[in-house]
Amino acid sequence: MNRIEILREYMKKCGVSACVIPTSDPHLSEYVPEHYKLRQWVSGFTGSAGTLVVTEEEGGLWTDGRYYIQAEKELNGSGIKLYKASEPDCIKIHEYLKEKLKSGDSVGVDGRLFSKKELDAIIEKLRKCDVNINTEFTPDVIWEDRPPMPLGKAFVLSEEYCGETVSKKVENIRTLMKKEGFTHYLATLPESVMWLLNIRGNDIKCTPVMLSYLLMSQNEIFLYAPKEKINDSVNKYLEDNNVTICDYKNIITDLGKINENAFLAADFSLCNYNLINVLKCAFKDKKDFIYNIKCIRTQKEIDNIKRAYIKENIALTKSFYEIYHSENIDECEVCDIIEKNRRMQDGYISPSFDTIAAYGANAAMMHYCSEKESCAKIGKNGLLLIDTGGQYYEGTTDTTRTLVLGEITEEQKENLTLVLKGNIALLMAVFPDGTLGRDIDALARMPLWEKGLDYRCSTGHGVGYLLGVHEGPQRLSIKSQEKLCEMMTITDEPGVYVENEYGIRIENHLCVKKYMKTEYGSFLCFEVLNYCPIGTEGIIASLLDERQRQWLNNYNENCKKLLKPFLTKEEYEWLKTYIMKI
Amino acid sequence: MNRIEILREYMKKCGVSACVIPTSDPHLSEYVPEHYKLRQWVSGFTGSAGTLVVTEEEGGLWTDGRYYIQAEKELNGSGIKLYKASEPDCIKIHEYLKEKLKSGDSVGVDGRLFSKKELDAIIEKLRKCDVNINTEFTPDVIWEDRPPMPLGKAFVLSEEYCGETVSKKVENIRTLMKKEGFTHYLATLPESVMWLLNIRGNDIKCTPVMLSYLLMSQNEIFLYAPKEKINDSVNKYLEDNNVTICDYKNIITDLGKINENAFLAADFSLCNYNLINVLKCAFKDKKDFIYNIKCIRTQKEIDNIKRAYIKENIALTKSFYEIYHSENIDECEVCDIIEKNRRMQDGYISPSFDTIAAYGANAAMMHYCSEKESCAKIGKNGLLLIDTGGQYYEGTTDTTRTLVLGEITEEQKENLTLVLKGNIALLMAVFPDGTLGRDIDALARMPLWEKGLDYRCSTGHGVGYLLGVHEGPQRLSIKSQEKLCEMMTITDEPGVYVENEYGIRIENHLCVKKYMKTEYGSFLCFEVLNYCPIGTEGIIASLLDERQRQWLNNYNENCKKLLKPFLTKEEYEWLKTYIMKI
Repeated sequence: MNRIEILREYMKKCGVSACVIPTSDPHLSEYVPEHYKLRQWVSGFTGSAGTLVVTEEEGGLWTDGRYYIQAEKELNGSGIKLYKASEPDCIKIHEYLKEKLKSGDSVGVDGRLFSKKELDAIIEKLRKCDVNINTEFTPDVIWEDRPPMPLGKAFVLSEEYCGETVSKKVENIRTLMKKEGFTHYLATLPESVMWLLNIRGNDIKCTPVMLSYLLMSQNEIFLYAPKEKINDSVNKYLEDNNVTICDYKNIITDLGKINENAFLAADFSLCNYNLINVLKCAFKDKKDFIYNIKCIRTQKEIDNIKRAYIKENIALTKSFYEIYHSENIDECEVCDIIEKNRRMQDGYISPSFDTIAAYGANAAMMHYCSEKESCAKIGKNGLLLIDTGGQYYEGTTDTTRTLVLGEITEEQKENLTLVLKGNIALLMAVFPDGTLGRDIDALARMPLWEKGLDYRCSTGHGVGYLLGVHEGPQRLSIKSQEKLCEMMTITDEPGVYVENEYGIRIENHLCVKKYMKTEYGSFLCFEVLNYCPIGTEGIIASLLDERQRQWLNNYNENCKKLLKPFLTKEEYEWLKTYIMKI
Repeated sequence: MNRIEILREYMKKCGVSACVIPTSDPHLSEYVPEHYKLRQWVSGFTGSAGTLVVTEEEGGLWTDGRYYIQAEKELNGSGIKLYKASEPDCIKIHEYLKEKLKSGDSVGVDGRLFSKKELDAIIEKLRKCDVNINTEFTPDVIWEDRPPMPLGKAFVLSEEYCGETVSKKVENIRTLMKKEGFTHYLATLPESVMWLLNIRGNDIKCTPVMLSYLLMSQNEIFLYAPKEKINDSVNKYLEDNNVTICDYKNIITDLGKINENAFLAADFSLCNYNLINVLKCAFKDKKDFIYNIKCIRTQKEIDNIKRAYIKENIALTKSFYEIYHSENIDECEVCDIIEKNRRMQDGYISPSFDTIAAYGANAAMMHYCSEKESCAKIGKNGLLLIDTGGQYYEGTTDTTRTLVLGEITEEQKENLTLVLKGNIALLMAVFPDGTLGRDIDALARMPLWEKGLDYRCSTGHGVGYLLGVHEGPQRLSIKSQEKLCEMMTITDEPGVYVENEYGIRIENHLCVKKYMKTEYGSFLCFEVLNYCPIGTEGIIASLLDERQRQWLNNYNENCKKLLKPFLTKEEYEWLKTYIMKI
């Protein structure tokens, strides 16, 4: 009996005609721990985003444009149909359920894996056509050999790596709570908890967080986390900061016991359905206080991030040298080379996501992940896309470079240059304070649009500080209604993806900075945080504007200057030929 | 007794403590006929947009960024305070009223001069603080020597000027009505009525419309218009098209008599409050059918508009020649020169708005209108901004050029070039189908933002077809949520306005065209409709990108080619020096 059949049997037992299994954990983490990868276990699709819907007869997987090619491959033969959720005419899951179910049917979902907001909306939509929702449906019980809950140890960030003290952060949050009359505040995103307490964990691969909840009032701070993750020194540190450690499992019952005079702030888009439904006190949906503060970097954090990037770029440049001087290696070995060079850097902790080293047609899959058994050999010619990042005590990095190997086609050269052109056009932008991510997104795409090309994803995302490599609310996308504020950081990563042929992406990491203030208001601009050489082989200089050409030459000059002290003579000589003045 | 005092006396008589007088007529026209310019009569402010609020003690005028400088001047000494409505912290009128009035007070408004939607919102907001609204307040009765209702004659557009036949247009609308079950449709915007019936009128200066309403069902079309405006041939034409002419004054009573089984579509943002409130049948707020169709040009209309622009640009080029070769003329004489040259063109009807000829500091007022007594002499040096347009049988034109006279400062040269750079960057844009006006607005502003400059208005607006020079829904503005669709036309007019010093604007008229269709979707681009020479004196070539420089040279070459047959030898020789290759 295959896994879908096992699931159907369980559905039958629970009396549900359909079920929805998202990619999620009770903290609604972006990257979920193995323990919670039920959707992957059932469907076989390994991408980091997607929702599986199973009915008595059919199975469907909804995922976004980054994963179409990969999902198509991985779902092949499973009987599960791919739904391309980024396409405007793709059927919505609730509409699909309406079509497939009859009045009186039940849909099973696990309330812990959906935000209050999302599940309320689904319930409302299905109620209209008389379909019930069973939110106590917990299909994870069918999972044999399920990986255990992660048990990574927490650690304290030493002062030099903290943008701000815990007491100052707590004070700021309490002021915000008071302003709106909240007596309590619930933070459920591990990133928020880590940020507030200046600690980190080790529960999620590539993201140094401890799965935990935080409940605070004007006098007390309760951290809900498994005691075994907290050693004596962390325990002492938390005590010194007036944090009471509570049993992770008690969050639901404790929330239910908050007294009726309390008024609790919780973000319905971030808190899972069950946490909110247990509340007996007054509460209000409130954009998470921490979420909207932690995206603004302090100058100390920015200085640290630049230090992290020096290390990262030493590792990457050495890796590029090695890749260009190796023969017959495969994509996984490229990842290994990068990891080896990173490990030689002080303060390196782990990758910030699985390195994408994608040669040739593999790079057309935006979030391709090479595996030893199936990965491609790096050929003598063509393009090698490397998207990689590290967690350093000084911050989180994320860089993409597309390496030109031997001969590439004229089309590839042109598209490589247009991607670079879009990347530079965006990072040179100046814009008034108040500009949304969507307002300047077109700058990065215009050179591609002129050739009838585009990429089916955002242009850029926020990056956490020794936290998740994707962090909101800032985003560069036609859908982003969020302002770009001073001291936010964001990536700039346009690309071209030609199915079955090749992929190109160039990604830099930017910080929003003051530009000038005039009678017309305050203007902002970007500062580039990372100096990672951009190879000039394959770049058609005449397609760049004069200022873009100058920018590229200056940027590469800076790379040389910054990296020289850390490279061998051979590496440096090679680097000089890799980034020629154009 | 001054006019505000007369108004206050009338307010007292009506028992209202405050009144709101908008710039409006019962059709909510953008340019209101003299008969309805009560706000101007009371306040002295002559701008085309603004709302006057008068209380027992105070007077305030709300207007937008285009008019700050002008309003400041014209309101000086009137006791009426200027409220800068485009500023984010400007108090809203309803908030102002809440502050000034006490519970139980009444505000007087003329229901005919507000859209149903707008007045409903105001009533709702004021009701919350117990302030009543008297919608039967008609302060126009205090206006002595009020200009009469306009009585311009209607005329039929001959076939060569019509984008589509009346019967085809009517058929399309009826199909749309049927789709949503509407039995009746009310059009109150004169532009919509004119467009549908392929007739024009002469009631509003610069806008060839007849003030009229149209009510249609699946079988009948009723045109509400004063009979004296319709001569025998128009009458015959309308009869042939199955249009029944009704007395203009009967619209309210006739709407009240529509039978109860009917279901009427009316746009609450376009129909005045009284028209909707009289209805006894079922009705629904519905985005005006015609409004959303008439913005899409047919190819025949585009071809006609290009013909209109050839004529317009002959007139403008001859005018520029004359201006450069005149001595000691003033701004009004500049307007006269343009009008004289236009009158020599076949098919010219009238200006499409009052020409702005603004020399030096006057050009800093975006919508400056020179008057003979006060207008400036054109000096030997400096900038002369000319924004002008004409109504031709082939369509409506709108062009701005900023003429460099003698010496200008380095700052002026730089800003002139940056405005041109923004203008070109926008018109060279390529963008996917579905792009909103807001998504590419930044392109036109970026060169200015880089210098900390900006302009406090939209980048561009739609233009009617032998109708209003401003036409929606399309708009280039950070506020525009409207798509740029194929065959819409729109202006491109960035600018720099330095108070008390000078103003620069360059405006072209663009049509949205197909660019290409690829696997990434349909892409659109702009085609320039007008070829009016852009003087190269004062342009700093090095500030333009290579492609922008080439565009300018090509554009000016085209101007030369198109205009040569119509210019005298002297004019053409001058033109060659005016637009040098850069």
